[in-house]
Amino acid sequence: MSVGKSFPRVDGMVKVTGKAQYVDDIYERNMLHAKVFRSTIANGWVKKIDISKAKALPGVEAVVTYQDVPKHTFPTAGHPYSKDPAHQDVADRNLLTQRVRLYGDEIAAVIAVDELTAEKAVRLIEAEYEEYAPILTAEDALKEGAIEIHEGTKNIVGHDNYKLGDVEAAFSQADFIFEDKFDTSTVQHCAMENHTAYAYIDNNGKITVVSSTQIPHIARRIVGQALGIHWGRVRVIKPYVGGGFGSKQDAVVEPLVAFLTTIVHGRPVRLQFSREETFIASRVRHAISYKLRTAVNKDGMLVARQAQAASLNGGYASHGHSIAANSGSKYRQLYNQKAINYESQTLYTNMPSAGAMRGYGIPQVMFALESHMEDVARAIDIDPIEFRLKNITRQGWKDPLSRIMVGSNGLAECIVKGKELLRWDEKKALLENQAGPKRRGIGMANFAYATGTHPVGLEIGGARIVMNEDGSVQVQIGATEIGQGSDTVFCQMAAETIGIPMNMVNIVADQDTDISPVDTGSYASRQTYVTGMAVKKAAEEIKRKTLDYAWGMTDIPAAAMDIVDGWIIYRHSGEQLMPIAEVALDSWYNTVFASPITADVTNNARVNALAFGCTFVEVEVDIPTGKVEVLEIYNIHDAGKLINPQLAAGQVHGGVSMGIGYALYEQLLFDSKTGKPLNNNLLDYKLMTTMDTPDIGAEFIETYEPTGPYGNKALGEPPAISPAPAIRNAILDATGVKFNQVPMTPQRLVEKFKAAGLI
Amino acid sequence: MSVGKSFPRVDGMVKVTGKAQYVDDIYERNMLHAKVFRSTIANGWVKKIDISKAKALPGVEAVVTYQDVPKHTFPTAGHPYSKDPAHQDVADRNLLTQRVRLYGDEIAAVIAVDELTAEKAVRLIEAEYEEYAPILTAEDALKEGAIEIHEGTKNIVGHDNYKLGDVEAAFSQADFIFEDKFDTSTVQHCAMENHTAYAYIDNNGKITVVSSTQIPHIARRIVGQALGIHWGRVRVIKPYVGGGFGSKQDAVVEPLVAFLTTIVHGRPVRLQFSREETFIASRVRHAISYKLRTAVNKDGMLVARQAQAASLNGGYASHGHSIAANSGSKYRQLYNQKAINYESQTLYTNMPSAGAMRGYGIPQVMFALESHMEDVARAIDIDPIEFRLKNITRQGWKDPLSRIMVGSNGLAECIVKGKELLRWDEKKALLENQAGPKRRGIGMANFAYATGTHPVGLEIGGARIVMNEDGSVQVQIGATEIGQGSDTVFCQMAAETIGIPMNMVNIVADQDTDISPVDTGSYASRQTYVTGMAVKKAAEEIKRKTLDYAWGMTDIPAAAMDIVDGWIIYRHSGEQLMPIAEVALDSWYNTVFASPITADVTNNARVNALAFGCTFVEVEVDIPTGKVEVLEIYNIHDAGKLINPQLAAGQVHGGVSMGIGYALYEQLLFDSKTGKPLNNNLLDYKLMTTMDTPDIGAEFIETYEPTGPYGNKALGEPPAISPAPAIRNAILDATGVKFNQVPMTPQRLVEKFKAAGLI
Repeated sequence: MSVGKSFPRVDGMVKVTGKAQYVDDIYERNMLHAKVFRSTIANGWVKKIDISKAKALPGVEAVVTYQDVPKHTFPTAGHPYSKDPAHQDVADRNLLTQRVRLYGDEIAAVIAVDELTAEKAVRLIEAEYEEYAPILTAEDALKEGAIEIHEGTKNIVGHDNYKLGDVEAAFSQADFIFEDKFDTSTVQHCAMENHTAYAYIDNNGKITVVSSTQIPHIARRIVGQALGIHWGRVRVIKPYVGGGFGSKQDAVVEPLVAFLTTIVHGRPVRLQFSREETFIASRVRHAISYKLRTAVNKDGMLVARQAQAASLNGGYASHGHSIAANSGSKYRQLYNQKAINYESQTLYTNMPSAGAMRGYGIPQVMFALESHMEDVARAIDIDPIEFRLKNITRQGWKDPLSRIMVGSNGLAECIVKGKELLRWDEKKALLENQAGPKRRGIGMANFAYATGTHPVGLEIGGARIVMNEDGSVQVQIGATEIGQGSDTVFCQMAAETIGIPMNMVNIVADQDTDISPVDTGSYASRQTYVTGMAVKKAAEEIKRKTLDYAWGMTDIPAAAMDIVDGWIIYRHSGEQLMPIAEVALDSWYNTVFASPITADVTNNARVNALAFGCTFVEVEVDIPTGKVEVLEIYNIHDAGKLINPQLAAGQVHGGVSMGIGYALYEQLLFDSKTGKPLNNNLLDYKLMTTMDTPDIGAEFIETYEPTGPYGNKALGEPPAISPAPAIRNAILDATGVKFNQVPMTPQRLVEKFKAAGLI
Repeated sequence: MSVGKSFPRVDGMVKVTGKAQYVDDIYERNMLHAKVFRSTIANGWVKKIDISKAKALPGVEAVVTYQDVPKHTFPTAGHPYSKDPAHQDVADRNLLTQRVRLYGDEIAAVIAVDELTAEKAVRLIEAEYEEYAPILTAEDALKEGAIEIHEGTKNIVGHDNYKLGDVEAAFSQADFIFEDKFDTSTVQHCAMENHTAYAYIDNNGKITVVSSTQIPHIARRIVGQALGIHWGRVRVIKPYVGGGFGSKQDAVVEPLVAFLTTIVHGRPVRLQFSREETFIASRVRHAISYKLRTAVNKDGMLVARQAQAASLNGGYASHGHSIAANSGSKYRQLYNQKAINYESQTLYTNMPSAGAMRGYGIPQVMFALESHMEDVARAIDIDPIEFRLKNITRQGWKDPLSRIMVGSNGLAECIVKGKELLRWDEKKALLENQAGPKRRGIGMANFAYATGTHPVGLEIGGARIVMNEDGSVQVQIGATEIGQGSDTVFCQMAAETIGIPMNMVNIVADQDTDISPVDTGSYASRQTYVTGMAVKKAAEEIKRKTLDYAWGMTDIPAAAMDIVDGWIIYRHSGEQLMPIAEVALDSWYNTVFASPITADVTNNARVNALAFGCTFVEVEVDIPTGKVEVLEIYNIHDAGKLINPQLAAGQVHGGVSMGIGYALYEQLLFDSKTGKPLNNNLLDYKLMTTMDTPDIGAEFIETYEPTGPYGNKALGEPPAISPAPAIRNAILDATGVKFNQVPMTPQRLVEKFKAAGLI
C-alpha cells in the first residue's frame, strides 16, 4: 500500500541539492531582459511620455509603451474559461496602460541585453501625469462623484447576495440579536520565488512562455486573449515553482513577456519581478470588511444570520468579485440556522490588485465569523465550544445553494482532539483570575472549506501514464507541483492503484501545454481530489490493460489475477505468477501482440467535498507592550483520508505559520495622501520567520470522503484559515479585550488596552 | 487535401535561420566534457596503461579505463529487442576495452571541465600494447589459425543461406551460365552532424542521455543493457538531428556517456566525436563481395541464380550479419526464376565496425546484381532493358520466404519513363561507334526495396494527438525527424485525416522516451508507412471523437457530418455547420461534458511493401585520365502515393548524390600493415560536394500501395541504391570495359583501360 504512507517527497533530493531548475535557472541563448516602467502616482493619466533617452542607451533593444500594445482589454484571473459571458472574468486590463490605477502601474517596458541595462533605461524614461487623489477605502470608492477607476463601473467590480429562509421573521423571533463589524487587511503571498517568466517563439512559431505559474493551461488562454491570437498559437511551460499561494493563479507576467518577444522577432525575453514589484504589481489578498448580525436563542441554537461584506480589489479586477462571493459560501456552510442572508460588494481602489490567496476569501470571513461566534457565546454565557458544536453542519447536511452534500465531517472529533491537545479544561481553570502585565489566554476557531470549485467552476484534470518495458511508469499530469507535494502524492496514487512499488513510479515534473494532459492547475485545494481522480482512473486503466495483456500471455482470466507489489499474482491464493516486468517486456516486444501500455485520461469532477477543522491556541499577551506570544498552537484537520501524513503535516505547518502572520504581523500599508505603498519589501513588511514561529501541532481526524479518489478532500488551503480568529479569541480570553481587526499588532493592542483601562 | 501536396518543411524556417537546436546547441549548467583515449594499433591488447599524468592535469574530473567498466558485454545495433535469444543482436562490446579490435578502439575516457583540457589529458595517457597483424580481408579472417578478434567466433559474426527450387537441376537445364565477382568498399555516412550526446541524472534519478540519435527508445534499452540497470531508469531525449543515414541507428556514444555521468554524480557530461572519430569509431557501410552465377535461356528468361556474399564487419558486430542477410532478400525479390540460392557470411576484421547505412546491404547487392544482369544481357545479345523487363517480379508476386506480396509495382513504367527522360533510343543510336579519348555511354539499373523490417523485425510506431481549445492540434510521435522530412509529412497526414488545414497542425519535434509514444525510430524507410499508420489511426480517433462531441452539441448524428478544412459540415450537402474550434472550445470548457479530445495510439505493422525504381544515366569518360563525368542522371521511383512530392524529390536528390559518390569517389582506406585508417577526414575522403553533383532528375510513377496508410511505401533509402550500377553500366557502354568494383576511381579506370588496350 502506497497511499497513506509518509514517503519522502519525490522532488526532495533535487530541491535540497539545488539541482531542481526553476525559471531563472534556465538559460537560453540570446536571452534578452525586460524591465517595466511603473507609475509614480496611484491614480491619474500619463499626459506625456519620453522614451528617447532610454532608446538611445547602448544595449537597449526596444522600448514599448501603452501606445504600442493592443487596444482590447483582457482578464488575468486563473479561472477556467467560461462560455457564459456572465461568468467570464472581468477583462479590464491592457498590456501597458496610459490610465494609472495604482502606484506602480505598468506604463512602458524596456528590452535590453541584460537586466542592469534594462533597469538603467527604465530610469531614463520620463513621464508627466495628471494626478487624482487616490481611492483607498470603500467609502471613497463609493462616494458620490468619485472618479471612476474603470470608466462606467462606479468603482464596483461586482456584487452578489443570497437569502435563504425568512430572515426578517427569524430575527424577530430570536431571544438575542448581536451585531458587530470586522476588518481584515491587505497582505501579500510572499512566495520564495518572485513572479518570473521568459518567452520566445518556438519551432512551431508558437509564442512560448516558460513561467513560474500554478496554471499553465489557463495562462496559455489568457496570453492568447491578451495578444488577440488563437490560443493554440501559445504554449506555456512550467518548470519547478518556488511557491504560489494563489498569486501565481493569475497571469501576472505572462501576457506582457509574451508580447515582448514578438517585438524582438521571437528572441527569448526574460521578465523577472523584484520583491518590491511582486508586492505591488502581482496580487494581494483582499482586505474585506464584514458587518455580521446574528440571532440566537437562549439554548444556544443559531436562528438567523446576516452578513454584509465590502471587499477592496485594487486597481484591476483579477479574480474580481468571486473571492467575496466565496466568503459567503463558507459563512453559510459551517453552521446551520433557519434563515441566512449574505450581501457583498467588491470595489476598485487605487491599490495593488487583489486576487486569489490561500483560502480564497475564507480566512477573512472566518476571522469575522469565528470572532463573532466567540463573542456571542460569551454574551449569552454558553461555553463557546459547546455553542459551536450545537450549530455545526453535520454529515448528511446539504447546502441548499450549491447542492453540495456533507459526505464526511470530523469537525466535532477535531474539536475534542484540540481540547485534549491543548489541555483546554485544565488550562481554563488555571488561567482564571489572572492579573499583572503578562496574561495568558486560550482560544479556538473552526473553519469549513471546499475541495475544488464545483459547481461554480469547471473542474477538469488529466493524467497520462506510460509503462516502460521494465514495468516502471511515468505519470504525466497537467496539474502543477508548486511546493505543496502534489507530485509525490500522484506517484503514491499511481503506485497504489496499479499495484507497483513507489520506486517504479516517476513523475514528469514539468508541464508543457503542448503535450501535458489538460488541467486547470493548482488552486482551490483541488489537486489530490480532481487530478487525483484522473490519476486513479489512468492507473486503473493501466492495471486493467496489464492484466488483460497477462491474460493473453497466460490464458489465466484477468479477473483471476491481481497486481501486488510489482507482481502478477493469483487473486485467490496470492501466489506470484510473474513480475509485471515480464508483461511489460512482452507488451513492447512481442512481434505479433506488442502494444505498449499507456493511459490518457481526463476527469471532469462534478462533485465537491467540505473539509473541516479548527485551531486551538494558547497565547501570552504582554499588556504594556502589546506583544503577543503564541505558546502552543494546534491545527486539527478533517481532510478525509491522508495520502501522505508527513506532507499533510507540512501543509499544516506552512498554513498555520501564514495564519499567525495574518493574525499578528502582516499588512501592506499605503500613504493615504499618495497611495504609495510604504512597506513593499521584506525588511518593512513583517513576514513570519522561523524565529517567530512556535512549534506547530498538526493533527488529523481521518474520515473517509466518499467522493474523493482515495477518501481524501481539501488540505492545501485550510490550515491558513482558523489561526487568526483562534488567536484573537485567546487574546480576548487573556485580556477581556475584543480585537475585530487583523493584524493585531502591538500598536493596535496597546491603544485598545489603554482604552480598556488595562494600561 | 493535405496529403499529396508540396507543403514546405515544418522545420524549414527554424533550420535556415539557425534557431533549431541540435545537441551541441543546448547548454546545461556545470557541463563537463569527455574525450576518449583510443588505441594506436588495430589488433592486440593493452598490456599496461598509465593515467596518472592525465589525472593530475588541472581541470580533469575523472579518468576511467577498461578496468573501471562493467564486465558484461552489450549489443549496440538499433534493432527492437527480441525476446528470442537467437534473434538478439550480438553482445560483443564493453564500454571500454583492453582487447583492441580496431585502430581507435576505446580504451579509456577523460572527463574534464572543458573539451580542450579533456583533449590534453587524453594525450597524457600512456599505453603499452601487445600488437598483432591486422586482419583486413575475408581471407585473413578465415585463414587457418587466424587470431580470433572475438574469442570463440573463428572471426565469423554470422552466416545464412537459403535455397528455393532445385538449383542444380535448373542450372543444368539452362542454355547459358554466367558467373562473375563483384566488390564493394567501406564507406562512411558523413552526416553533417557528428555523433554527439550528453548525459546527466535527472530529477527522477534517471540517467538521461540527450543524443543525436535516430532511435531514442532503442538507445534507451541499449544504455540500460550496457550499464546493467533497469531500462526504465534510463531516459533518452532527441532534439533536432543533423543527419543519420543509419550510423545513428546504433548506440555509438550513448552507453559510454551515460556511464560517464554516473562517475561524476550525475553532472552533465558531453561526448562529442570529431569527424576523424566519427569515421572510425561510429559505423561504416559493410564492404561486401559477391560471387554471382546466373543461368539463363536463349529467350532471355532467368532460369536459376546463385550468390555467395562475404561481408566485412570490422571490430564489433553492430548490426552484425543482418545486413548481408538483407542483401539476399532483395537479390531474390527483384527478379523471378525457377530456382535460387544465396549464401552469405559476415566476418570480423580489424576495421571500423560496419552497421546500418542507407540501403542496408542493398546498394552492395544491387551493384553486383545489376552489373551482372547488364553483362548477361550483352553476352546473350538481348537488349539489357528488355532482359530486365522480362524477368522482374510483378504485382501479385509473393515472396516465398517472407510471404510479402507485391501489392503494387510500377517498375516497368519507371523504366519506360527513364528511357524517355534520358532519350535512351536516340542516344543509343548517336553513341554508336565512338572513338577518341572522350566517350559517352548510357546505362541503367533497377532496384527493389522493402518498407520496414516485417516479418524479420518488430514494427511498432506510436502517435499521440492533442487538440487545443481552438481546434488546432499537436502531433507527438516517437519516430524521429533526422532531416528526411518526416515531421512535415506526419503533419500533412494528421491534417488530411482530421480534416483541418496544415496551419492547425503542429509537431512536437523532440522525442523524450519518458513521454513520447513508443516507436523503434527512423530506419528501414519505415516512418511514413509504420508510424504514418499510427498517425492516421490517431487522427481518425480525433476525428471520430470530434464528430461524436459535435453530435452531443447539435443532435445531428456523427455519421451525417464530416470535417473539411477546419469546419464541421453536413456530409450530404457540404454545408458548413460550425468551425471545429467551436467543438474544441466546448470540449474544453463545457462544465458538464468537458473532455478535451486526445488520441494515443500504437501501431504494430505486420505488413510490408516493396518499393521499386531505377536509375538512368549518361556519362562521359575521359579515357586517358580515367575521369568520369555524369552528364545526365534520373532516378525514377515507384514509392506508391507521394505524401509530399517536393520532399520526395529531396530524398531522391540526396540519395542519388550519395549513390554517385558510392560509384565514383568514396572509400575508406587502411594501411595494410598497421590497419591504420588513411583518410578518415573530409579532406582526404572524397565526399560529393555541390561542385561534383550534376542536375539530378527525380521522377515518380505513383502507384497505390494497399498496405500503406495513404497508399505510400518506402522512399528514404531507395534513391541511393541504383546509381552505382547504372553508372558502371554506362561506363561499360562508353568504353566496353567492365568494372566490377566500386568506387570506380580514375586510378582503377586507367589501369583497366591500359589492360584493355584503350590507353
